[in-house]
Amino acid sequence: MTDSAASDARFLLRNAVDALPEDALEQQLERGRPLRVKLGIDPTAPDIHLGHTVVLRKLREFQDRGHTVVLIIGDYTGRVGDPSERSASRPMLDPEEIDRNAETFQRQAFTVLDRERTEVRRNGEWLDMEMEQLFRLARTATVAQLLERDDFAKRYAEGRPISILELLYPLLQGYDSVAVRADVELGGTDQKFNLLLARDVQQAYDVEPQSILTMPILPGIDGVKRMAKSEGNYVGVTDPPEEMFGKLMRVPDDVMPTYYDLLLDEPFDPARPAVESKRALARAICARFHGEAAADAAEAHFDRLHVERAVPDEVEEAALPAEDPVHLPALIADNFGVSRAEARRLLAQGGVKIDGEPWSNGELDVAAERLDGAVLQLGKRRFKRFRRAAGAA
Amino acid sequence: MTDSAASDARFLLRNAVDALPEDALEQQLERGRPLRVKLGIDPTAPDIHLGHTVVLRKLREFQDRGHTVVLIIGDYTGRVGDPSERSASRPMLDPEEIDRNAETFQRQAFTVLDRERTEVRRNGEWLDMEMEQLFRLARTATVAQLLERDDFAKRYAEGRPISILELLYPLLQGYDSVAVRADVELGGTDQKFNLLLARDVQQAYDVEPQSILTMPILPGIDGVKRMAKSEGNYVGVTDPPEEMFGKLMRVPDDVMPTYYDLLLDEPFDPARPAVESKRALARAICARFHGEAAADAAEAHFDRLHVERAVPDEVEEAALPAEDPVHLPALIADNFGVSRAEARRLLAQGGVKIDGEPWSNGELDVAAERLDGAVLQLGKRRFKRFRRAAGAA
Repeated sequence: MTDSAASDARFLLRNAVDALPEDALEQQLERGRPLRVKLGIDPTAPDIHLGHTVVLRKLREFQDRGHTVVLIIGDYTGRVGDPSERSASRPMLDPEEIDRNAETFQRQAFTVLDRERTEVRRNGEWLDMEMEQLFRLARTATVAQLLERDDFAKRYAEGRPISILELLYPLLQGYDSVAVRADVELGGTDQKFNLLLARDVQQAYDVEPQSILTMPILPGIDGVKRMAKSEGNYVGVTDPPEEMFGKLMRVPDDVMPTYYDLLLDEPFDPARPAVESKRALARAICARFHGEAAADAAEAHFDRLHVERAVPDEVEEAALPAEDPVHLPALIADNFGVSRAEARRLLAQGGVKIDGEPWSNGELDVAAERLDGAVLQLGKRRFKRFRRAAGAA
Repeated sequence: MTDSAASDARFLLRNAVDALPEDALEQQLERGRPLRVKLGIDPTAPDIHLGHTVVLRKLREFQDRGHTVVLIIGDYTGRVGDPSERSASRPMLDPEEIDRNAETFQRQAFTVLDRERTEVRRNGEWLDMEMEQLFRLARTATVAQLLERDDFAKRYAEGRPISILELLYPLLQGYDSVAVRADVELGGTDQKFNLLLARDVQQAYDVEPQSILTMPILPGIDGVKRMAKSEGNYVGVTDPPEEMFGKLMRVPDDVMPTYYDLLLDEPFDPARPAVESKRALARAICARFHGEAAADAAEAHFDRLHVERAVPDEVEEAALPAEDPVHLPALIADNFGVSRAEARRLLAQGGVKIDGEPWSNGELDVAAERLDGAVLQLGKRRFKRFRRAAGAA
């Protein structure tokens, strides 16, 4: 192997969990021609958070070495509906909604990817096939093979239903790799099965099988679950800078090395104080998506809130009630263990602060949106951050 | 229930193995309107044997009571190919071949069915659907539900592959019941699962679910395995009368009551000598498909062969070698334990008979077709009937 192919491979495999088959990527790079590197996108969830950027940044590394990224918008999949158990009866997305989502996704993805080296395709181009073509595709895999997939295996073992349609989806995604002649496909570790299955589908169609690269799943800002919009533990790439900075300052210390590995180019320094590492990360991410000036302002805002106004870095979280607007005396009474009368008195006396500012305008009913993510302070030392329940809009 | 509906139901349920849901057919008959009774046909196996006529005769009984038979030629299924494990790579049938087979099937089926009360449909009319329609269909059943089917369960347990396409087939057949608004579907007991699944598919499409009726599987003339062309134990409805008569006379005594139940209107009489029962059955079946005169001639031929020429009723069977033509001295030597020289001597002396006639024309190489099913007699007492191996043309 040439030195440059070997060094490219080393770089591109950095942080990857699986790179299969073994040495396949090295051999592909050795040939010297630009590779077609596929990423499949679900147009039902258009907003990109930092978790998505782990894979996007890896794609960017391929682009920086002259390779082409093929971004596949799963518009067809979106149009025929989500086959998962939970939402079997869920209405299909309409074409306009898919267009809007695809647009949103691309706009956000190009904050990481190089537009010049990206080919955007929609799988409706080739998946709206003749039934006979679909039947050919349906022959390329067996039931046993698909039931090996972790989530299917679990559901099957637990007696939870898996529709036949769900078995078809991984095959359709695999066919995407046939259609775009993918050389490499990237995904999270949760996609490993699908990425490998696509190799079988390619082989059934006499197309040279892709190699696959899986990247680790980024933990959310709770440091526990995977980052996901539905978990409410995400940092969106379009979050306003103050919010982005504040959220990142709440990431637990022990996942900071993972955040450095997966989100920054700069190595994590274990000798540095945790709060400094965190601050540097928050600054760098804010600057990446909003520019240096916005990062400066976000940091200043954070300092004002937490340092000057003595809001602690880590604040206990509580759920907002489902009502909108939210009645402040009730919220305070329910969460701080005081009576509503006492809550009203504190509000009238300026003893309640929201995000560090005394709530002195006399309003008792406040829009849920205003309170979502806000820190409510009672007296000098009692703080709670309120959030809408996961799943609520 | 009216007396006439009750009596019709009793008659129509005669010999049925399953009639599900319980009392459903009675209720359907009670409504007094003609029912649409479905039978699905595989156009890859156009020749009808007596085994098929068990279900066809039951359909005829429905017709005789004013109901309509809907015969569905699975041309679509045939065109996309047989999905079974064994023949996964088998080429699809071309449209001309399907037409020819459908033609053959209908011609033969109308020896039993009433053409005036039969609606012939091809499932290509509705199965060549939009992909989105297919996806809707693929949602109507779960993997677990389909893996309950006996043959799937067995193969799955044994680790033999089942392609995703195979899971789609029962759903496509079920959709046939939606398309033709079947009230009742008939089939062999081996079809029970598919017939019941069609009810679920109908319900998913808001169509009133059919009731189902399964009929017993007719044993072949070996009395052991199910009658099937591939087993070489079948009586085709177009077999020449002599062959038909001869084959039926070889059916073992112990399955004679089953043959009476499933093929004749006349009850089996256990007090009657077995050979007489058999002869009456053979005559009745020959007369049904070839007329009385041909049945007379076939019986006479049989008597000449077996009674006058002393060929025993039951003759040991042996397989013809794969070669064509067959070299008689070798065949005789291999099967009767004599040397080839001895065999040649016997042939020259007229000591070898084929179907009761001395083989005195001096030919030593004989077309395999001439010998297939023929009884070869060596001297006075040694007989063997030769058959091409199952699977050979």
